[in-house]
Amino acid sequence: MNFYVMTLFPEMIMEGMKTSITGRALQSGVISVETFNIRDYTNEKHGHVDDYPYGGGAGMVMQAQPICDCYEAVMKKIGETEKKPRVIYLTPQGKVFNQKLASEYAKDENIIFLCGHYEGVDERALELLETENVSIGDYVLTGGELPAMIMMDCISRLVPGVLGKEESADIESFHDNLLEYPQYTRPVEYRGLSVPSILLSGHHANIEKWRRERSIERTLKVRPDLLPEADLSDKERAFLRELESDRKDN
Amino acid sequence: MNFYVMTLFPEMIMEGMKTSITGRALQSGVISVETFNIRDYTNEKHGHVDDYPYGGGAGMVMQAQPICDCYEAVMKKIGETEKKPRVIYLTPQGKVFNQKLASEYAKDENIIFLCGHYEGVDERALELLETENVSIGDYVLTGGELPAMIMMDCISRLVPGVLGKEESADIESFHDNLLEYPQYTRPVEYRGLSVPSILLSGHHANIEKWRRERSIERTLKVRPDLLPEADLSDKERAFLRELESDRKDN
Repeated sequence: MNFYVMTLFPEMIMEGMKTSITGRALQSGVISVETFNIRDYTNEKHGHVDDYPYGGGAGMVMQAQPICDCYEAVMKKIGETEKKPRVIYLTPQGKVFNQKLASEYAKDENIIFLCGHYEGVDERALELLETENVSIGDYVLTGGELPAMIMMDCISRLVPGVLGKEESADIESFHDNLLEYPQYTRPVEYRGLSVPSILLSGHHANIEKWRRERSIERTLKVRPDLLPEADLSDKERAFLRELESDRKDN
Repeated sequence: MNFYVMTLFPEMIMEGMKTSITGRALQSGVISVETFNIRDYTNEKHGHVDDYPYGGGAGMVMQAQPICDCYEAVMKKIGETEKKPRVIYLTPQGKVFNQKLASEYAKDENIIFLCGHYEGVDERALELLETENVSIGDYVLTGGELPAMIMMDCISRLVPGVLGKEESADIESFHDNLLEYPQYTRPVEYRGLSVPSILLSGHHANIEKWRRERSIERTLKVRPDLLPEADLSDKERAFLRELESDRKDN
């Protein structure tokens, strides 16, 4: 998987990606990240990449020219490909990123990110690059760099060879639309709090049942919006209905 | 606003925060960020901070001891406060972060972040620290560092003095539950594409109406889930109904 990032802050991207699992994947060559500084492509003699919005309003808008020329440099670097690489523009105005989208993107060979700044990007640049507009959540950030790093982290974990065998299982989160159960590790007692005894019982079926029930409980409490799509057995549905009626009674 | 980050990767946090608007706010002293390396607080002689999960399963779990001792060091650093500082644990198992939560958090004086890694954190640490569990979206990441940076970026922008007057207006996004309208800047024509002529008309009321309608159109197309809560005038509601019936006809 090759990532190409068009940005005004290339160092920020490289620093963020070199840590932990993505850092290891970069070193082993399973993924690559290359940054392109949009400012290097402006025709404006003072190096400006933004200007006032037509129609008035606060803030500055990034101009189409430096972005389009930067994009052409990226495409030249990528060279001939069977399929036009996806260009993702990070924006609160996009569809919302989630684990399912990540799985889809992880199948690509090349992904280009466009990181905006200021009040946004000239709409014509987005049209010309045929961007796919993606939001990582309903909040406003300074620029697209952190969201691009979030997406690269998440997508990389789904690329074969990035996670070890032991680690791979944890990408199952959200696959059944339930939050994960609580985790405990040594020691058995810490500051007066004990590990639930069932986890020490060695009885795998009971442990699995306990964990599923805690997952259902937690999802009902924190993210009931996920439950309609949750993959539950008939017994688990009955358990959920019980929980729901208990909540109503209180 | 003072941020304290408990993490295994302190450099990553500091590198990410020193750029752009948060970097400027750090320099001016309006916000501060201090990192605490959880590994420095382990009692384990080889410096380990994780162990196998009780009850089996893939991955490693971060132990309670280093986290609780690290937390005590943070609290000692903060000193006496009127209100116990919020401790935010970044996890897909949390409530979902959004602009409204950011506004609430921006009123705090001190915020502590706990960044997990591996398969998660011993539940007892979360109980002892009385964490507020927050997710930045429905996707799985390597650790809590990028999400903590996302939250610090978003929250900082709402702290008085961080954004200039010109910039402040853009935090209005999501306040009326509509996506933003398209933006254009110079030149008027670029690669055969023109700026919509209304934006060059100088007629402010018409421009405002055009922008609102584009916002409504875009929200309907990309994020219809936001519309039930959108703040629309009667005329705008009528415009939305028209759009909806056009879509049904096609």
